[in-house]
Amino acid sequence: MPLNILVTGGAGFVGSHTVLELLNAGHAVICVDNLCNAYGGGAGSKLPESLKRVQEITGASVTFYDVDIRDREQLLAVLKKHKIDCVVHFAALKAVGESCRIPLKYYQNNITGTSILLEVMAEVMNTLLLAAGVFKIVYSSSATVYGEPQKLPLTESHPTGSCTNPYGKSKYFTEEIMKDLCESDPRWTVVSLRYFNPVGAHKSGRIGEDPNGEPNNLMPYISQVAVGRRDHLRVFGSNYDTPDGTGVRDYIHIVDLAEGHVKAIDKLAGGSISGFCVYNLGTGRGYSVLEVVKAFSKASGREVKYEIVDRRAGDVAASYADVSLAAKELGWTAKRGLDEMCEDTWNWQKNNPNGFAG
Amino acid sequence: MPLNILVTGGAGFVGSHTVLELLNAGHAVICVDNLCNAYGGGAGSKLPESLKRVQEITGASVTFYDVDIRDREQLLAVLKKHKIDCVVHFAALKAVGESCRIPLKYYQNNITGTSILLEVMAEVMNTLLLAAGVFKIVYSSSATVYGEPQKLPLTESHPTGSCTNPYGKSKYFTEEIMKDLCESDPRWTVVSLRYFNPVGAHKSGRIGEDPNGEPNNLMPYISQVAVGRRDHLRVFGSNYDTPDGTGVRDYIHIVDLAEGHVKAIDKLAGGSISGFCVYNLGTGRGYSVLEVVKAFSKASGREVKYEIVDRRAGDVAASYADVSLAAKELGWTAKRGLDEMCEDTWNWQKNNPNGFAG
Repeated sequence: MPLNILVTGGAGFVGSHTVLELLNAGHAVICVDNLCNAYGGGAGSKLPESLKRVQEITGASVTFYDVDIRDREQLLAVLKKHKIDCVVHFAALKAVGESCRIPLKYYQNNITGTSILLEVMAEVMNTLLLAAGVFKIVYSSSATVYGEPQKLPLTESHPTGSCTNPYGKSKYFTEEIMKDLCESDPRWTVVSLRYFNPVGAHKSGRIGEDPNGEPNNLMPYISQVAVGRRDHLRVFGSNYDTPDGTGVRDYIHIVDLAEGHVKAIDKLAGGSISGFCVYNLGTGRGYSVLEVVKAFSKASGREVKYEIVDRRAGDVAASYADVSLAAKELGWTAKRGLDEMCEDTWNWQKNNPNGFAG
Repeated sequence: MPLNILVTGGAGFVGSHTVLELLNAGHAVICVDNLCNAYGGGAGSKLPESLKRVQEITGASVTFYDVDIRDREQLLAVLKKHKIDCVVHFAALKAVGESCRIPLKYYQNNITGTSILLEVMAEVMNTLLLAAGVFKIVYSSSATVYGEPQKLPLTESHPTGSCTNPYGKSKYFTEEIMKDLCESDPRWTVVSLRYFNPVGAHKSGRIGEDPNGEPNNLMPYISQVAVGRRDHLRVFGSNYDTPDGTGVRDYIHIVDLAEGHVKAIDKLAGGSISGFCVYNLGTGRGYSVLEVVKAFSKASGREVKYEIVDRRAGDVAASYADVSLAAKELGWTAKRGLDEMCEDTWNWQKNNPNGFAG
């Protein structure tokens, strides 16, 4: 059944790919984004470049509002105008390093922003006397909430909260707030999706990750080295307790991740779950930094120069998911492997060497 | 040296007693309070009853603003008008039961409120190019951040974060935000005071605890039973692993607590501490519910009827502080015992059977 889905932060990397899959699945998408991390758009309702391209790819249209979710009045107006069935909440800041330098900015955007969104949802639902079934939200969480893994693979029951940076804490605090909300009012259902390491791009090569400034994450960094925007990659530590000594992570193709959101919405809309639910989204398979470098070189046909440097504070040796719960309850499994992740990243990068700016 | 001290939430129980001691110590007090838990006051700058009485007792005056700390513009105006040396931050909601029913209200008031206060402080400090020494704040925290005690007495290094209700989590999250802030910018100094169970009242009997509706805490409940406002006390559980089976808590006289704040400000202003500092404020001695009932009966000369009922979810058997750190670093120790706590509570209650309303 087609639904009206409000997507916050829909102009970003995960947001735009999810909007695309939601449109492909026949849903109507109403998007709000403050464009703080997007190219183009603005002036009230002008589409950012990422969503323009999503429209071109899908042939479907997105209703867009240039709105910051912390602006209660504007957000309320959007929710009153559209009969929303379900919310997918991406809007958040995500740069770990910046979060350590400017923590209040992260707490304000991520926690206050989410609290206002939830309050506005409740206000609309209560005011308009809609059915109980509309208190439904999919939340963009992260494996960072697990802190340092006590046991691998990480299951959803692994303890959370020992996060080493404000970004991670803001994700953890937000999960706790949503959990308390569900305990306080059984009309709410929250699906928190804990992402491992999203990489890759849509097959079209028209949308992909377009980080501001120096990338925080491995794959966009490698990709910018391969395309010649950066000289070489720094590999943080080669003496971890892993097969080749470099850090091991669970990379997941962005299109698999986006499909996971569509499955989560099917589940939410189906009404067979309630309260606060959590699912890992990963492949269940870890790859080391050097394995990713090698796979990317193969996919791109370019050399990726790298240098081994000291470990980075807060990094763990290895992190990968137990993905059985999402398979069992959402009927979702990641289908795309490391080679495809690298090929699709490269396809995006070589066609858009400077991201959406051209 | 007299300081200009901004007190948020100064109209409340801990706030008003602390304002009194700050005035006695010769400081100038600028108070903001949204009056959501106060009797009287309002209309911009009209003093609530508690602060009127503080002025009568001390013969000193308080500058008062009827301002919600979440109102960034109004708060900024107050901080720009007065050259603030130090902030004491009480403004927060504190009813555990209500926090479970309406969690978002607690997260918005306590976390968003604090974040805005800190941002406004930084903005004023940076804009006005004041000396580094003004990023100083005393925070009203709680022993609730320790969750269920793993070891007694509770030292400041006991793990925090396993809180069982949104009120407690909001205190814990706020401490973490302040800790991250101190790590991000060495100009900040935060003193977080973890209160055990504040009770009692000022000797004058003119100010005291005036809870809205049914009291959440033991002492005001007992006191309302003694004065005839309530029929009897319910004692939650008599089969705990404690000497008489009822819960044991570390009660602290509100005037001792207020004096602890004055000592913390002396320390802050002296500049001998930096970063995020934590001190327990308690007596270090636990009393059971039945011991408190007995002491209150003696102090008031009234019978306090009680009934034993089931345990209450989230309550722990015993909690009391290790108070050596505050003694060593702040030069502060609680001086008033249980009898004095009961006498002063009773003196306030019998002179103000309906609180500030008369």
